Parts: sequence; structure tokens; C-alpha cells
Amino acid sequence: MELSRLSYNQITSDHHSLEEVAQACAVEGVPYMAPWRHKLNQENVVESARIIREAGLKVSSLCRGGMFPAATETERLARLDDNRRAIDEAAELGTDVLVLVCGPSPDRDIEGARAMVEKGIEALIPYAEERHVKLGIEPLHPVFAGDRSVISTLGQANDIAERLASPQVGVVIDVYHVWWDPRLYQEIERSKGRILGFHVNDWIKVTDPLTSRGMMGDGVIEINRIRQAVEKAGYNGPVEVEILNHAFWNLPCEETIKQTKARFLEYV
Amino acid sequence: MELSRLSYNQITSDHHSLEEVAQACAVEGVPYMAPWRHKLNQENVVESARIIREAGLKVSSLCRGGMFPAATETERLARLDDNRRAIDEAAELGTDVLVLVCGPSPDRDIEGARAMVEKGIEALIPYAEERHVKLGIEPLHPVFAGDRSVISTLGQANDIAERLASPQVGVVIDVYHVWWDPRLYQEIERSKGRILGFHVNDWIKVTDPLTSRGMMGDGVIEINRIRQAVEKAGYNGPVEVEILNHAFWNLPCEETIKQTKARFLEYV
Repeated sequence: MELSRLSYNQITSDHHSLEEVAQACAVEGVPYMAPWRHKLNQENVVESARIIREAGLKVSSLCRGGMFPAATETERLARLDDNRRAIDEAAELGTDVLVLVCGPSPDRDIEGARAMVEKGIEALIPYAEERHVKLGIEPLHPVFAGDRSVISTLGQANDIAERLASPQVGVVIDVYHVWWDPRLYQEIERSKGRILGFHVNDWIKVTDPLTSRGMMGDGVIEINRIRQAVEKAGYNGPVEVEILNHAFWNLPCEETIKQTKARFLEYV
Repeated sequence: MELSRLSYNQITSDHHSLEEVAQACAVEGVPYMAPWRHKLNQENVVESARIIREAGLKVSSLCRGGMFPAATETERLARLDDNRRAIDEAAELGTDVLVLVCGPSPDRDIEGARAMVEKGIEALIPYAEERHVKLGIEPLHPVFAGDRSVISTLGQANDIAERLASPQVGVVIDVYHVWWDPRLYQEIERSKGRILGFHVNDWIKVTDPLTSRGMMGDGVIEINRIRQAVEKAGYNGPVEVEILNHAFWNLPCEETIKQTKARFLEYV
């Protein structure tokens, strides 16, 4: 796919600073980047925004809000506060998309946790509206159902978005999380009008599920087919490359970005 | 749940021989075991059957047939031959259930591979009927979609069983593979009349997905709730404990079996 839609998700070079990644993207002509909150200057997000802007980059999304389920009401409210800070940071960075990793269950009651997720997202809508930020529910691969998100399928994300029926709530589709789903193409079609982001990488041999993401072309995902389905469902925004993998973390970010560009052109 | 339905799946003590596991089950009063093909005496399955029978155990199922998709027709036919041998072995061991791990795709075309699975199962039906062995489609957790099975949900397994509409074809439900599924309870209900096996263990923190299975009670799965749903769907047969985990592999099988019994009573 054409490089004008490429966004470099910062976690792909997690050992580098925001400034280093922004500079390298600028040198390589990558138009977007997607920062993670742990890489922002938390005391001064304006400063982080300036670094990205002065490098000539746009921000495709901020990673991440979410983590709604918790054992107590006090803790759930604290999580909502943190999400409001994330919404502020997204607005400050000039992106209208906050990616939601919805969180695991505090106990064995996975359905109860799913209800907490929906209630949490609902509670954020007014503030998201006020700050002109959209909330992108990213279903995570079922391998993360125990420790990262009880929202495991695009169908669940679509169900929540449909029920909440707010222009502030949409979905984010990452090929790593959804490629295996027998209902994938139906659910992409159903996402029409509410796709807020599209992430690419590849599914290689999994050792640790968190850090076994591959470079596009190295794995088994039909990336191009999924990309076309996502476009057919109306999404024409930036496409983030997001790869969590020690092999890439140990490379200079310039090198990873060069490889990313080549693979993006060939496999996305 | 009562110990009269406990079946000890041999992979839980994979470093021990068939004879050692059978003896230990007998001493502990476990009524069933489930052997794996790599632990059978392949030159003399009658001998393996004798060991189990003389220990006073029944066989709940044989693990495993399947692995249908392959790049060439020749290879696919070879896989079918191997499945017919597995059917013979199941019959010889005195079980009427062969568990199917359906196999990964030989390339990126996951839908093509799914069609090969269905065609493969269909081709086995006449021989399975002749030998009075049923074919249990076991959906595997989506984390294995790239390397072990393109059948990732109980919904897919039910779809195939419904389309093939043969009394020889049913499903096997393992809590590790299905616990995350938002459609789980609907699909268990839909499995009514065709559940051929039920496997328990637990979902703990995943490092390597293959060997991160936990002992019942150590993880996040609502085992008891799922067990009740499976019973409500008409299954009253043996319940296999199947745990792939180095910690248990490194224990004497007597010890693992003792712990299994206690947890089975408390959490299943």
C-alpha cells in the first residue's frame, strides 16, 4: 500500500525515545506516528506534541486508554479518571483517536467484566465528545483474555459500539488480534462507518504472545485481503505498523523503519 | 465433581510411560485414562490395550487424529491413511472416541484450509462407522490457529458437525480452548447430542501457549459453570484432565494424580 498512509507505532521501537522515533520517521518520510502514553512527557504533554509536530508528523492515534474492569467501584472510578487524562493527552497531541485496550477481569467472572467495560466506555462518552476524541475499542486476541482484555472479537466490539450508538465510539482493527476469526469478514463489513484505526504486523510462531509479533510478510496473515476488506468498509485513514518483538526492539529505529516501509509497500 | 467420571489424560504426565500412568491411576482409583498415540506401542497396540485393561481402567478417548490440511493431494491422502490407523487404534483400545486436532494451513489461505478439514473428516466417516469410532472435532484456542488448528471456535466445530450430519461426527470441548469465547454458552447448548468429550485444566499466565496449562483452580476459568452447561447439553461421560505443563511433567505421576483428584473434587 502507498506510504502516504503509513503510521509508525512507537512500540515497534520501544527502546527509543519519542524524539528519536519522530526524527527517524521524518528522515524516512513516514507521515504519521502513533505514540504510547508511557513515552510521553507526562508532566508536559505539550512538549511531546511539539516534538512530533516539529518533525512534520501527524499523530494517527494514542495508545492507550481502557483497563475498565476492577474489583471495587473506587478503583473503577480511578480508571475512568485515568482515561479522561488519556483523552486530554490525545487532544493535546492532535489526534482524535484514543485506542482502548479494555482490560482483564479482576476475578473469574468474565461476563461481569465485559459489562464493566461497556459501562466504562459509556461513562467516557460525554468527556470524549467535549474534547473531540473518539474511543476506539480494539479487540485483543483471545490469548490475552486472561491478562489484557475480555473483549476478544471484533463481533464483541461491534456489539458494544452498536448498543452505545454514539459517534464517539468505534473500533480499531489489528490483524494480529483478528486474523484467526471465522467471522472476520462479516464483522469488518459490520464495522462500516465506525472503523477508527487499522494496525498491521504478522502472526509468526508464538513463544511469548506479547512479543511474538512479526514483520508483515514473515507470517501467515492474509494482510492484503484484510486491508481491502477494511477499505471496503469505508476506512481510508492511516495504517499503523505495530510490532512488539525483541528482535526489532534491539535494532536502531532507522533500520526498522526502512524495513517497515519496504514490507508495507509489498504486503499491506 | 465425583471421581467416578475422572479420566486422566496421559499427556498430563508426559514423561512417564503408558504402563506407569496406568498403574498409578489404578492405585489411585481413577477409573479412566486417555492415551496419546505417541505413547502407544505402535508395533503392538494390542499390548498397550492389554496394559490399560489389566490395570482395570477404561479408555475415555484416543488423542489424536486430524491434521487434515496439506499442500498436495498426495499428502492429504497420506494424512487420511494415518487417521484410519488412528481409528483402528481407538477401536483396539476399546474407546469409541478419536479426538481430532484439525491442523494448521499449509499457506496463508485459512479458509481453504478449513475446507480441507471438512473434506477430510467427511472422507473418514465410512471407515469410522465400520469401526464404531466417533470423530470428535476439538476446537483449539485461536493462539494455535497458525500451527495446530484452523478450527478455533466451538461454533466452527458445530457448523461442520451440522453440515456433515453424521452420527459419527461430534465435538470435544476443552475449557482451555473455549473459555474466552463470548458465544460459549450458546454454542455448548447448540452442541447438544454431539458432545463426545469434555476436558478440564485452567488458564494461567501464558508464557508458551502449548505448555502454560494450569491445574484446575489455579487460573481464571469458570470451570464449574462450563461443566454444568456441558451436562445440561446432555454429556454425562468421562471428564478428562489434560494439562500440558513442565511443572507437572517433572513430578512423579502419582503425585500429579493425587493433586488432580483433589482439584477435580473441588473445582470441576
